[in-house]
Amino acid sequence: QDSGDSWLPSLLTETPAQGFDLAVTMARKGVTTTQGDKEVLFAVRPNYARDPQSLIDVSGVIAMYFATIAEANDHWEN
Amino acid sequence: QDSGDSWLPSLLTETPAQGFDLAVTMARKGVTTTQGDKEVLFAVRPNYARDPQSLIDVSGVIAMYFATIAEANDHWEN
Amino acid sequence: QDSGDSWLPSLLTETPAQGFDLAVTMARKGVTTTQGDKEVLFAVRPNYARDPQSLIDVSGVIAMYFATIAEANDHWEN
Amino acid sequence: QDSGDSWLPSLLTETPAQGFDLAVTMARKGVTTTQGDKEVLFAVRPNYARDPQSLIDVSGVIAMYFATIAEANDHWEN
Amino acid sequence: QDSGDSWLPSLLTETPAQGFDLAVTMARKGVTTTQGDKEVLFAVRPNYARDPQSLIDVSGVIAMYFATIAEANDHWEN
Amino acid sequence: QDSGDSWLPSLLTETPAQGFDLAVTMARKGVTTTQGDKEVLFAVRPNYARDPQSLIDVSGVIAMYFATIAEANDHWEN
Repeated sequence: QDSGDSWLPSLLTETPAQGFDLAVTMARKGVTTTQGDKEVLFAVRPNYARDPQSLIDVSGVIAMYFATIAEANDHWEN
Repeated sequence: QDSGDSWLPSLLTETPAQGFDLAVTMARKGVTTTQGDKEVLFAVRPNYARDPQSLIDVSGVIAMYFATIAEANDHWEN
Repeated sequence: QDSGDSWLPSLLTETPAQGFDLAVTMARKGVTTTQGDKEVLFAVRPNYARDPQSLIDVSGVIAMYFATIAEANDHWEN
Repeated sequence: QDSGDSWLPSLLTETPAQGFDLAVTMARKGVTTTQGDKEVLFAVRPNYARDPQSLIDVSGVIAMYFATIAEANDHWEN
Repeated sequence: QDSGDSWLPSLLTETPAQGFDLAVTMARKGVTTTQGDKEVLFAVRPNYARDPQSLIDVSGVIAMYFATIAEANDHWEN
Repeated sequence: QDSGDSWLPSLLTETPAQGFDLAVTMARKGVTTTQGDKEVLFAVRPNYARDPQSLIDVSGVIAMYFATIAEANDHWEN
C-alpha cells in the first residue's frame, strides 16, 4: 500500500470542473509512476509541453480518466 | 479549485451538436492545461493544425469526450 | 450555438450501416473543426489518404464514434 | 443511404468468433471509406501489412469494434 | 465462418488471470488476421518485441480486449 | 493456465489508490507478456522511461486498465 490513500481518496467530486482537475492529476500520476526520478521528469517535461503531438496525447489520457470519473459521479446529473 | 465551475458547469446540453461543441472545448482544455504558456500555445497551434496526424489525433480526443457527454445526456434520446 | 443543429440533429439512425456513415461524418467534423481553413484541409487530405498510418488512425476514430452511436441506438437490437 | 444495408445488416452474430470476423470487416471498412481509390489501397496495403506498428494499430481498431459488437450481443452470454 | 469457433468459443473465463491470457490471445489474433503470411510475421515479431513503443502499444490493445472480457464476466465479481 | 492466478486473483481493491496500483501492474504485465526475455526488457526500459511519448502512452494504458478496475469496484462508491 505504498501509494497511500492520500492522493486519491475517492473519485467523487462536487462539480464536473473538479472532476476534470482530478483527471489531469491522474494522467500526471501515470507518468510519474513510470518515471519516478524527478530530475529526469523535470528534464522531460519542457520537451513534451512544447511538442504538439505530446500535448494532444496527454489530452487523450485526461479524456480517458475523465470518462471514468464522470461515470463514478453519475455524470453529475441534475 | 483554481479551474472554476465557470468553464464546465455541466455535461448536459440541449442537442447533440452542442454536445459536440462541448467535446471540442474539453479537448482543447486538456491541451491548455498541460501547456499554460499562451505564447508557446500560439506557436504550437499552427503546426499541429496543418499536420494530418495531429488533426486526426485531435479528432480522436474529441470522440472520447463526446462519448462521455452523450452518455450523460442519455444520448439525447427521443 | 454556431455549429447549428442541422449537421447533427440526432444520434439515431435506422440501420447499423447508416450509423457507420454518421460515425464517418463525425470523425471528419472533428478534423474540420480544428482546421477550419478549407484550403489547408484540401492540401492535407491527399497526404493522409495515402498514408497507411493515417488511414488506420482515422478508422480508429470512426470506431469510437460508432461505439457511441451504437449505444444510442440500443445497438439496433432486434 | 449510399452505403447500403447489405454490408452491415446487424451487429448480432451467433458466436464470439463470428463477432471477431465482423470487427475485422468494420475496421477495414473504416480504411476503405477514407481512401476509396482501390489502386491506392492496393499500393498501401503491402506496406502496412509488413509494418509492426501498423499491424498493432489495426489490431487496436479491431478491438474497439469488437467491444461494441460484444456488447450488442450481450457478450454472447450463456 | 472460416475462422471457426475453436479459437474463441466464449469470452467467459474462470479467473481474471485467465481473462488476461485470453486478451493477449485476441490482441495477437488481430495482428495475424491482417498479416496472414507466417514468414512475414516471424520476421516482424523480433522487431516489435524490442521496440519500446510497440510493446506499450500492444499492452494497450490487450487492455482494450481485457475491458470487454471483464465486462462479459461481470468483472468476476465475488 | 500458465500465468497462474497468483498475480491477478481479483479486480477488487479496497481503495481507488490501490486500484490505480493494480492498473500499473496490469499495464506492465502487458509489456512483459509480449517480451518475456528479461534481459531485453531491462535494456528497453531505461529508454522508454526517458522518452516523453512513451511515458504518456504508458499513462494511457494505465488509464484503460483503471477504467475497468473502477467499474469492477462500482467506482468505490460511498
